[in-house]
Amino acid sequence: MRQAGRYLPEYRRVRERLSLLDLCKTPEAAAEVTVQPVDRLGVDAAILFADILLVAEPLGVGLTFAKGEGPVIARPVRTRDDVVRLPTVDPAEAVPFVFETVRLACRALEGRVPLIGFAGAPFTVASYLVEGGPSREFLETRRMMYANPDTWTALMERLSAFTARYLAGQIEAGADAVQLFDSWVGCLSPDAYRRHVLPFTRSVIAALPPGVPVIHFGTGTAGLLEAMRDAGGDVIGLDWRVDLAAAWSRLGPGVGVQGNLDPAVLLSERAEITRGVAAVLEGAGGRAGHIFNLGHGVLPSTPWEHVRAMVDLVHEMSRR
Amino acid sequence: MRQAGRYLPEYRRVRERLSLLDLCKTPEAAAEVTVQPVDRLGVDAAILFADILLVAEPLGVGLTFAKGEGPVIARPVRTRDDVVRLPTVDPAEAVPFVFETVRLACRALEGRVPLIGFAGAPFTVASYLVEGGPSREFLETRRMMYANPDTWTALMERLSAFTARYLAGQIEAGADAVQLFDSWVGCLSPDAYRRHVLPFTRSVIAALPPGVPVIHFGTGTAGLLEAMRDAGGDVIGLDWRVDLAAAWSRLGPGVGVQGNLDPAVLLSERAEITRGVAAVLEGAGGRAGHIFNLGHGVLPSTPWEHVRAMVDLVHEMSRR
Repeated sequence: MRQAGRYLPEYRRVRERLSLLDLCKTPEAAAEVTVQPVDRLGVDAAILFADILLVAEPLGVGLTFAKGEGPVIARPVRTRDDVVRLPTVDPAEAVPFVFETVRLACRALEGRVPLIGFAGAPFTVASYLVEGGPSREFLETRRMMYANPDTWTALMERLSAFTARYLAGQIEAGADAVQLFDSWVGCLSPDAYRRHVLPFTRSVIAALPPGVPVIHFGTGTAGLLEAMRDAGGDVIGLDWRVDLAAAWSRLGPGVGVQGNLDPAVLLSERAEITRGVAAVLEGAGGRAGHIFNLGHGVLPSTPWEHVRAMVDLVHEMSRR
Repeated sequence: MRQAGRYLPEYRRVRERLSLLDLCKTPEAAAEVTVQPVDRLGVDAAILFADILLVAEPLGVGLTFAKGEGPVIARPVRTRDDVVRLPTVDPAEAVPFVFETVRLACRALEGRVPLIGFAGAPFTVASYLVEGGPSREFLETRRMMYANPDTWTALMERLSAFTARYLAGQIEAGADAVQLFDSWVGCLSPDAYRRHVLPFTRSVIAALPPGVPVIHFGTGTAGLLEAMRDAGGDVIGLDWRVDLAAAWSRLGPGVGVQGNLDPAVLLSERAEITRGVAAVLEGAGGRAGHIFNLGHGVLPSTPWEHVRAMVDLVHEMSRR
């Protein structure tokens, strides 16, 4: 449940004085926001508060967050020259505030629950850079892959190198696990994924220190599960558009799964929430290696009491 | 390959004098546009030119097509009262021009290739009515399903009854096969699909006269395939985000499959197009019951020569 925040009153209070980017760059505030859902909701882990596009700012592409519209990139990366012009970025110099946030959040958590670090996967970050912002079809990205594979490869190589060091830095700062968000990779065919994404994602995961669990997540990936597993990760994160039991059976017993209640269920009432939680837990069948989660972030209009009710239900039903 | 048109010069010429809605309501012109791709591209079937939202106009919800933004519905259907207020619509009175288009197109085709009629599936039409236009997340639709299932059911019952009569009318007018476009159903969990969509889609398909093939299509449905098959259809249409061979194996030998080249491949060059076509045909393995198609409509920026090249490649490679 990323976006620890938007539906929590204490998060919105912090945002009254800090923009999204300023919040990410203020470790004390970002650590506070990271810990808030643990106190309010009783979840079993905290996830770093940050944005997957923090990397885009040091790349000099003109990142801003338009109110209510998400990220806007003023100078999209579309050509070979655009890629070559991107500076080589060292996470320790470019985003030191993220590592400081991890340190402060770990201190504030005092070992109560583990802290999950995270990064956008190379494909998803690339898709923002190429499209210039959020997209429905990711046409320019798919076009680059098919029509200019060398340009695509050059872009993915740069992003993979950064991402591996970025996650390693979070682990060094104290993150107990990391999650790789390939949020928009579900727009691809399995064939395109295996040719143009898998090698890069694999290189990121393979570069991480052993012993730290990696959760590999995407949305709309019901057609990509086996390929995502082959790219790596101890746990595959599922969105709600796939049956959990069927997905786990396709993935095999070698990986855990995380998921996958439809976040829109939390817009309804207690009976429907109970039904939804029970269905997910039933799909997992009580097997070790299941991390209950929503299939994507909490929707901004969700009453936080419904999130709390869901967490309590998961705890109660899991104990039975 | 629906949207017979946007990338064809002769289609754009027709659109210079007629808006989308006026074109649909002018059977001579709509029949002409239906036949154009057969002449230009050498495809093996024609598909009726119409819009899945033609039904929305007689419902009195204030349908317009904003330039470049797709359909806009001025008065979205969100409450029980909104649903009750919808008039009962008889296709023969509400959209007689569609049936006349089918008749004229059949005459113009002179049996050269079959004509495929079509309709939006109840879910997809409902999603437009509820959201008020195109959507990325379909949140209001999912919210209605979970939070107001009775309202949702009432809406789906009305749309299903209309859709069954609408498709039956097209068959009576001469359509050789029909395709049910559940274009946006891929936003749902398999559980929500089975509870809130399947019974209605099944009722539409079950009401059609026997002997006329039904193609049942959606996008982003890699997690829904078995449930869509259970809803009905002789052929399941696949988008590009699932491996064709794996999908067919899940569906079983009782149905055919249609698909599923990524339309973005047609934005690249001949070598990549050839590779893509070969991969789809290889996935189908020469089995009877495969209809080669794109995984969704032709993208507007596609050079028509690339579409023609693809059609020729399919014919050549299939003969081998």
